[in-house]
Amino acid sequence: MNTKKYFKKSEFVPAIIQNADTNEVLMLAYMNEESLLKTLETGYTWFWSRSRNELWNKGATSGNTQKVKEIYADCDLDTFLIKVEQKGAACHTGSRGCFFNRIGE
Amino acid sequence: MNTKKYFKKSEFVPAIIQNADTNEVLMLAYMNEESLLKTLETGYTWFWSRSRNELWNKGATSGNTQKVKEIYADCDLDTFLIKVEQKGAACHTGSRGCFFNRIGE
Repeated sequence: MNTKKYFKKSEFVPAIIQNADTNEVLMLAYMNEESLLKTLETGYTWFWSRSRNELWNKGATSGNTQKVKEIYADCDLDTFLIKVEQKGAACHTGSRGCFFNRIGE
Repeated sequence: MNTKKYFKKSEFVPAIIQNADTNEVLMLAYMNEESLLKTLETGYTWFWSRSRNELWNKGATSGNTQKVKEIYADCDLDTFLIKVEQKGAACHTGSRGCFFNRIGE
């Protein structure tokens, strides 16, 4: 599979993680080509940590893994949408998802 | 409102746009502080175009506007999730949403 085309503009591409059952948007993380390949190979999400400069397998330490159901690229091939079966909390704070800070209300 | 805190790590923050009624993820675009402020002031989405280096008001030319229902920041305050009332197609291709390229199947 040609995965290079997704990383032409940038080495790191944002991946939106959505609960496949509820359609809740859980989190956003970044992927490089290696993490996309590992995600495709294993069927679980792998990301690139821009702060730690390393690959990470979501849930490897917490147990809160994300089993991949579907992966899409957008029209410009520079963003991913990954629908997952989420085990436990997606957010490192223990919250179900990361988007809990309401703005402007 | 203190909006500076969202732009500490980067001048441009990814904003996930989700249909408030169907929960479909429609697109991802980038915001700088000015576009967030204009979005909050007007109640419609404004983004920063990294290719054209300018603010843009989604739907200003196409008519496919996005009326803001809710805005959230994530746990790290470096990504937005915006739930909108989408008029017409969200994608510039005419597709309802931008995530139509299935990967790995």
